[in-house]
Amino acid sequence: MKDLAHTPGDTATEMLVCVTCRRKGASPDDPRRPGRVLYDRIVAEALPAGLTVTPVECLQNCSNACTVALRGGDAKWTYIFSNVDESAHAPMLAAGAAQYHAAPDGVIPWRDRPEHFKRNCLARIPPLSPNKA
Amino acid sequence: MKDLAHTPGDTATEMLVCVTCRRKGASPDDPRRPGRVLYDRIVAEALPAGLTVTPVECLQNCSNACTVALRGGDAKWTYIFSNVDESAHAPMLAAGAAQYHAAPDGVIPWRDRPEHFKRNCLARIPPLSPNKA
Repeated sequence: MKDLAHTPGDTATEMLVCVTCRRKGASPDDPRRPGRVLYDRIVAEALPAGLTVTPVECLQNCSNACTVALRGGDAKWTYIFSNVDESAHAPMLAAGAAQYHAAPDGVIPWRDRPEHFKRNCLARIPPLSPNKA
Repeated sequence: MKDLAHTPGDTATEMLVCVTCRRKGASPDDPRRPGRVLYDRIVAEALPAGLTVTPVECLQNCSNACTVALRGGDAKWTYIFSNVDESAHAPMLAAGAAQYHAAPDGVIPWRDRPEHFKRNCLARIPPLSPNKA
């Protein structure tokens, strides 16, 4: 469980990847859970400095796995995305996370937002700080 | 928009209520949105000291409104709940929020958890601090 630990007070941008996610259509040849496969592929992508990827247990969105969340301290919105495909979406997630990381409030302009983010946002949580946008 | 402001760095327990939520079956006689009705009813309930209720704009769970979220600083899980009925659920939410507030990590023991929380948890986000449970 070592890799499930969080850093207290960490305010850097963080992508949470549910590594317990199962998914219909996942490869039966891979003993890893689809969420774990997704995590392994994301951390193999080029990621900007200041963005951490954290494997977490169940985000309770099991019926629409795989699931990832993006959060970033008190000033950013938190987003949860569903229906992530572990075999296809790691590059898209890395790019989208970089856009999120660069946005002061975490809100990626709609026209620039990955299509998957537009169509599979499960929910969002407002920042603690007032939104300056 | 004054009532949509957040307190920077606030780590008290907070219930976020989406006041822009619409809902099928809502009373056509009430000009307020169901989410606003829900907010008005929650703040009329008896709430524990240290629990704040914040009206927020769209949590992007529109198809399963009304929506509320519970969060509480770096040590608590954040939970999002769907399908809240503005006419019936304010007392349940007040009681559930008090249980969440009293739980150091925000995890209400399953057997004590309101039935609506058990069946309508849209997703949860882990705390920043390591979970001591």
